[in-house]
Amino acid sequence: MSHSGASVTLRTSKGLVLDLVRSSGPISRVELAERTGLTPATMTNVVRQLLAEGLVLETGRERSTGGKPRVLIDVNPTARYAIGVQLGADSLTYVVTNLSGAIVARLRTVGASDAPPAEQIARMAHDIDTLIGDLALRSDSIIGIGLVAPGPQDLERGVLLAPPSLPRWSDFPLRDALGDATGRSVLLDNDATAAAVGEFWGGAAPDASTMCVVYMGAGIGAGILIDGTVYRGASSNTGELGQLWIASPSSGARADTLERISGPAGVVAATAAAIANGSTTSLTLRGKDPFSDFTTISTAATLGDELAVESITHSAEDLAESIGIAATLLDLDWVILAGPAFAVAGSLYVGVVKERLARTLFARPRHAIEVRLSTHPTDAAAVGAAALVLQDRLAPRTFGVEPR
Amino acid sequence: MSHSGASVTLRTSKGLVLDLVRSSGPISRVELAERTGLTPATMTNVVRQLLAEGLVLETGRERSTGGKPRVLIDVNPTARYAIGVQLGADSLTYVVTNLSGAIVARLRTVGASDAPPAEQIARMAHDIDTLIGDLALRSDSIIGIGLVAPGPQDLERGVLLAPPSLPRWSDFPLRDALGDATGRSVLLDNDATAAAVGEFWGGAAPDASTMCVVYMGAGIGAGILIDGTVYRGASSNTGELGQLWIASPSSGARADTLERISGPAGVVAATAAAIANGSTTSLTLRGKDPFSDFTTISTAATLGDELAVESITHSAEDLAESIGIAATLLDLDWVILAGPAFAVAGSLYVGVVKERLARTLFARPRHAIEVRLSTHPTDAAAVGAAALVLQDRLAPRTFGVEPR
Repeated sequence: MSHSGASVTLRTSKGLVLDLVRSSGPISRVELAERTGLTPATMTNVVRQLLAEGLVLETGRERSTGGKPRVLIDVNPTARYAIGVQLGADSLTYVVTNLSGAIVARLRTVGASDAPPAEQIARMAHDIDTLIGDLALRSDSIIGIGLVAPGPQDLERGVLLAPPSLPRWSDFPLRDALGDATGRSVLLDNDATAAAVGEFWGGAAPDASTMCVVYMGAGIGAGILIDGTVYRGASSNTGELGQLWIASPSSGARADTLERISGPAGVVAATAAAIANGSTTSLTLRGKDPFSDFTTISTAATLGDELAVESITHSAEDLAESIGIAATLLDLDWVILAGPAFAVAGSLYVGVVKERLARTLFARPRHAIEVRLSTHPTDAAAVGAAALVLQDRLAPRTFGVEPR
Repeated sequence: MSHSGASVTLRTSKGLVLDLVRSSGPISRVELAERTGLTPATMTNVVRQLLAEGLVLETGRERSTGGKPRVLIDVNPTARYAIGVQLGADSLTYVVTNLSGAIVARLRTVGASDAPPAEQIARMAHDIDTLIGDLALRSDSIIGIGLVAPGPQDLERGVLLAPPSLPRWSDFPLRDALGDATGRSVLLDNDATAAAVGEFWGGAAPDASTMCVVYMGAGIGAGILIDGTVYRGASSNTGELGQLWIASPSSGARADTLERISGPAGVVAATAAAIANGSTTSLTLRGKDPFSDFTTISTAATLGDELAVESITHSAEDLAESIGIAATLLDLDWVILAGPAFAVAGSLYVGVVKERLARTLFARPRHAIEVRLSTHPTDAAAVGAAALVLQDRLAPRTFGVEPR
């Protein structure tokens, strides 16, 4: 059985320190050594290397109650930039982030499902040029493009393999085509995995957690992080929550995948059917773009429209059921909801998921489970894509089990 | 949120080398260094330490086509022994294994569900005394007892928390009570996790695999191993496959947990109902001990009794469905079926699971999934329990992400 890499990635000491400075800076060398377990001598060397590369700065001194005040280290946010691109059937999101993960430019366009891939790649290259053209950055300070999309994927070849929401892109040489069109190095990864990395870098969950970031755009996936490292399984095709088959009361017990029943298109179809059957509602669905209709339903739900609330609640209940399955198999203690589908009615979803998990988690006699909404649901995957590039280029991780 | 330990355990170099010698010995220092990634100097030190403790032996020299022949290292099987105890509602299995994991003594008794825990502990201590009394071993060469049982568990306190198949044992101070009764140190862990460790130590799957060992006794659980290390989640309560809710055609679409519908008691109940409804069959169920009736049905299924085949096939299909869910979330490439419930009709189960996963695995465009029956399904958890003790005492693992 071939592997694109082992399941657990470990941070090098450089990566570990850079991650910690990013999430906890300004911070002293002493505290860095304490929190990483590295020796003070190793820490001195690692920080010297990061200073020489311009990735971190000495930013001042800690007030001290005695002894020599400690010099504080922080990331140099403008030292490097990365481009993150999230390719979805619902929308395309482009961001440029600095080394701190802050967004310095953003662009959102319509989704990618209908255009032929080659045309779409040309448009993407043009959009990326426009985006970075507006910024007065030295071109070599932009270290690469992180491109994220739904699974399944073959990361070795840089292609998508029959993704349910983007069928036209199956086996298209996605990574290399965007690389050729932009002249930049491109890293391909799973959108939900990227969202998880983005959430973790943004400090959403504590370092020691078993976290699942549920990502809903047109499709539904999940990224799994164990103590801050990505769980990749046999081939980086993990957490495919949307592909679980469910028999939902909301679908008249028709068995289908969670993604088709409770994703945006499923919610729109069920709502349209209810309207056709005479349900009273303030809703008017336009019937063209399911994702735009889903936003309409989400907005009406937050305003209390009864049918809209019912539709979103059904979707949230089915989602909660599937997250409960992941929690029972993975013994999760953190769940974060991210993705454009949670931009409007995310807090309704969080309420339902939280209530359900508190009631059903198998390990509940042992520990609680935290459920949160991403602080930037729409940009999470694109920001995570940029974070993956920064990690890969500046603070690479080792693969596999590391002996000592 | 409190943690009993981080999710990923890493091997120390000593543990890594001892594991590799166990699984691949006799083996030279050079090959050990190559396969672990340790430097030859570190390897020389580690092997010297293992030789000094008597855990490994120099066993001969490799034939060589030139240069100096290499000395081969192998485990010293009789250097240490461990006791493994698997506590289940269906049966209790005791084994003593040597350092190679070979069983040197075995005892099986009736299950633990009906006796009050304190009485049962006294009986267990007596059974353990009898078992090791028959062996002419130096008492101090037996380094401890590994006790495994269904989840959920609190490993810090050494207790079971409301295990569905052993309700009387909830919150009973299991680990400490057996320690007091035997005067030996006791380690408590999950039965399915232990079975997974036992399978891996026995060489069932390659080192670089994402493996799920599905364990069926009276209950159904699963142990997850990533590249040879146990995945423990937030509180070591992972892989609880039997607690997933399913709506099975075999149960008239009644929704219940997999364990209740498709575990031994569920199979017996469905078969008894079919007999009561007039199904033709060679079966006679005694209606006392569901596990003994399940064995009767399993045997009849292997002999072609139509009703028995139907019952076992339904159970296997529901199990396959749930394993498919785990495979989709975890991106598995190895599945092994272990536990006393697979002792008789295991190959019928393997056939159904293999066929189903080949058809439904989300990552199937990327890689295949291997499905195997344990070579010692009934003893797997007890042997794994002993392996966990040997690992814990002789080759402890570090917890958490290890910087370098």
